[in-house]
Amino acid sequence: MQGYDKHAFEPFAVTVDLAVFTIRDGALHVLLVERGQEPYAGRWALPGGFVLPDESAEAAAGRELAEETGIADVGRLHLEQVRTYSDPDRDPRMRVVSVAFAALVPDPPEVHGGGDAARAAWLPYSPATYRPLAFDHDRILADAHDRIGAKLEYTGLATAFCAPEFTLGELRQVYEAVWGAELDPANFRRKVVGTAGLVEAVPGAARLTGGRGKPAALFRAGTASALHPPLLRPAPEGQTS
Amino acid sequence: MQGYDKHAFEPFAVTVDLAVFTIRDGALHVLLVERGQEPYAGRWALPGGFVLPDESAEAAAGRELAEETGIADVGRLHLEQVRTYSDPDRDPRMRVVSVAFAALVPDPPEVHGGGDAARAAWLPYSPATYRPLAFDHDRILADAHDRIGAKLEYTGLATAFCAPEFTLGELRQVYEAVWGAELDPANFRRKVVGTAGLVEAVPGAARLTGGRGKPAALFRAGTASALHPPLLRPAPEGQTS
Repeated sequence: MQGYDKHAFEPFAVTVDLAVFTIRDGALHVLLVERGQEPYAGRWALPGGFVLPDESAEAAAGRELAEETGIADVGRLHLEQVRTYSDPDRDPRMRVVSVAFAALVPDPPEVHGGGDAARAAWLPYSPATYRPLAFDHDRILADAHDRIGAKLEYTGLATAFCAPEFTLGELRQVYEAVWGAELDPANFRRKVVGTAGLVEAVPGAARLTGGRGKPAALFRAGTASALHPPLLRPAPEGQTS
Repeated sequence: MQGYDKHAFEPFAVTVDLAVFTIRDGALHVLLVERGQEPYAGRWALPGGFVLPDESAEAAAGRELAEETGIADVGRLHLEQVRTYSDPDRDPRMRVVSVAFAALVPDPPEVHGGGDAARAAWLPYSPATYRPLAFDHDRILADAHDRIGAKLEYTGLATAFCAPEFTLGELRQVYEAVWGAELDPANFRRKVVGTAGLVEAVPGAARLTGGRGKPAALFRAGTASALHPPLLRPAPEGQTS
């Protein structure tokens, strides 16, 4: 537009931050990087970086993830916006507004540091052990964890973390890993069977699970893209589900 | 931070856009402004504007709403982030990244234009009648509408649009207005009664509704902040709820 001076205003920078989760050895893990530059050099942080002039936040998220962690097949990740963080003092360099994304991915690739990241690693989701993260990333990580927990409520995403045929006990362990809560097996079975499209029984198939009980029936992923009704997390204190 | 030149990079601007909905005369309405300046002068748009150097996106949203529409008591609105829009070409002036918010408010105040807005008005939610909005606001408005529809599924917000004591028919009209769908009265009653904490019966109270049936029982808002299970919108085609 003619006559518009874009340098007349206090400049903002826009960044992206990515909270990418996976399940390893039955436990929820998150992808973190060690910052190789100031500010917060040497501190753990979420991968991310500056949005370039010719790209959207979504495009920047994929590029930064590849640069800083070596994850090449970003298209598979289904990065989802969590929210945007814009407190005036959240970055010591200048006004930086950050668009945060979350993803929960099966079969995580190995990662290695690059770009601004001295190293990259899948760490167990246990924020107390690496807090404080750089910037306001503790808060972003907590919000992102809540978002993927909610995503398991209303989609069949959890089945992507099981083999093609699985027992309900194996599926339950995925929910337990992400939600950080033990679930009652009988109650879980009742909810899963009552949630249309989440799983389908594999007729006649069963698996010996090593316990004293009868072999466990096998299931495969259902076809629903959204769950009706959702499969809800255990209710917070004071509520009943 | 010393040595960091914030003017060395292509500048971004950050804006906020607000999709504020209400129910008037039983119909969903949205608050729009007529742009008083280029670009898109004379076009309808969502209220909003530039985030200032010393404020967060949330603070900017409240300030812009007051300036452009005269809504003073912004604290009551419970503005919720929808998502952030960052396509490189979405604003002809420069790189503008916009954080979008949505709210659904009872008892809407009268509004009047101000700031960059030539006028402000509550218009029926009927996008075809004022499309295309300025910028990418058609898309933002659609996303925000979807968000408030979802909010009615998992909170008791709908009861805020009824009198302190209401019939289930009155409550159903709120859901119908927001979701843009007719709901089966018997099915709706069954769902509402089965959703813990949404409503409470007012013992012994009933209201003649003018029909030939018996007087309708009266209810008041329940105490749950989140609904377990949620009260779901009619499922999209191909799904059963």
